[in-house]
Amino acid sequence: MKTYTAIALEKFPMVEAGDDVALQIVENAKTNNVDLEDGDIVVIAQKIISKAEKRIVHLKSVQPSQRASKLAKKIGRSSKIIELVLRETRKILKLSRDIMLVEDKRGLICINAGLDKSNVKGADAFALLPENPDKSAQNCRAAIKKLTNKNVAVIVCDTYSRPFRRGQVNFAIGVAGIKPFKDYRGKKDLFGQILKVKNIAVIDEIAAAAELLMGQATEARPVVIFRGLKEHVDSCENCSINELFISRKEDLFKNAL
Amino acid sequence: MKTYTAIALEKFPMVEAGDDVALQIVENAKTNNVDLEDGDIVVIAQKIISKAEKRIVHLKSVQPSQRASKLAKKIGRSSKIIELVLRETRKILKLSRDIMLVEDKRGLICINAGLDKSNVKGADAFALLPENPDKSAQNCRAAIKKLTNKNVAVIVCDTYSRPFRRGQVNFAIGVAGIKPFKDYRGKKDLFGQILKVKNIAVIDEIAAAAELLMGQATEARPVVIFRGLKEHVDSCENCSINELFISRKEDLFKNAL
Repeated sequence: MKTYTAIALEKFPMVEAGDDVALQIVENAKTNNVDLEDGDIVVIAQKIISKAEKRIVHLKSVQPSQRASKLAKKIGRSSKIIELVLRETRKILKLSRDIMLVEDKRGLICINAGLDKSNVKGADAFALLPENPDKSAQNCRAAIKKLTNKNVAVIVCDTYSRPFRRGQVNFAIGVAGIKPFKDYRGKKDLFGQILKVKNIAVIDEIAAAAELLMGQATEARPVVIFRGLKEHVDSCENCSINELFISRKEDLFKNAL
Repeated sequence: MKTYTAIALEKFPMVEAGDDVALQIVENAKTNNVDLEDGDIVVIAQKIISKAEKRIVHLKSVQPSQRASKLAKKIGRSSKIIELVLRETRKILKLSRDIMLVEDKRGLICINAGLDKSNVKGADAFALLPENPDKSAQNCRAAIKKLTNKNVAVIVCDTYSRPFRRGQVNFAIGVAGIKPFKDYRGKKDLFGQILKVKNIAVIDEIAAAAELLMGQATEARPVVIFRGLKEHVDSCENCSINELFISRKEDLFKNAL
């Protein structure tokens, strides 16, 4: 049989602005009697990276632009929230009373540009996504290597709504040390036929697998370590979340909604 | 710490029409030195269910309808393939040279109504989705209970392309014994704020987590058992994949593609 184990660290400290998340992970792993190993994949909830990287914004400090005020009026939402979303946005894909779907400045397609209220302290405080989640993952990976001499991969994840299906799942938004895809195209199946389409977004699957232990409420388990996946994924020194981005032109689902 | 383990059974037999998949799982688990336990979640690749349930179709036996021939001409594809897709389809969402996206007769939104060539024996043979994947999951769950006296949950999964992101991930298409969602709406976060949106499609996340070991080519690992997730998901006697279906009207992403 082939197996892997997912390990959620418990009693992770409350992350504050300026904290060293890599150090917190290494120390918290010890507290959990977990020694990081070569080939481990460390999945980190975006929220704690955003907190450490000072990406928490208080609405009282936000001055809405004219454009934000105009859009806010149009859809009946807070101009300050719209302003925050616009600052993170490259292109608005849909704007209505119910949803502000954008291509953000990183290239991620997400609701409200990833702006999120949950598990952020303060009634008017919101978390923005990390400025550069790949960079956050790379930094964390390098720091873990320095602290433990172990070669791990890092995935930063966030919760995503998706078209066509109810509910949300976790997907990756930043990556270091692991290839985002397992590409079967050109390989043979059990009967010798060449596979033409299968190109599996394994980092999204690992992010999804992590959420099962992370939870979304008071669990305080923002870090999940995967052990045993080494032979099932490919390592990569210079891969990026950008590889998951697809232009509207290439997107088979274009005009399907 | 909190952990779970994913266990992929190896040397799973080649499934043939009429095979008893539940019995194969129980016997193959023994060969792998795995004893099924209460609370295990057994994830099964759709393909072996389709094979066992005689859902393999040979193109030579397919007589295209007038409609199929007309559509095939329009988009430059095989009329026999279009005929197979139409038979499984409730509504065509997008039809082009590159994609035939449908709401299938079950309510699943999928490309080619789930019709799939990979790992199906015979140059002109295609697998259709199980007629009723919930029923397949229920039957398998009941049979495992009968054979082992263990109360497991069963998820039937398939590989999905998705809008906005490159590549595919595994999602659930049938379910028995587990609630499809973990619903956090109305619960409090770490700072006592009420969560308003978070309703996580855990069966999709478990399906995604299973794919990491299943593979897509010659791995022959169509069954993955999850152990340790019992406290992180809710059991359910009468849940259905239908709960994941979302009407176009409700879909926030409507008109966003």
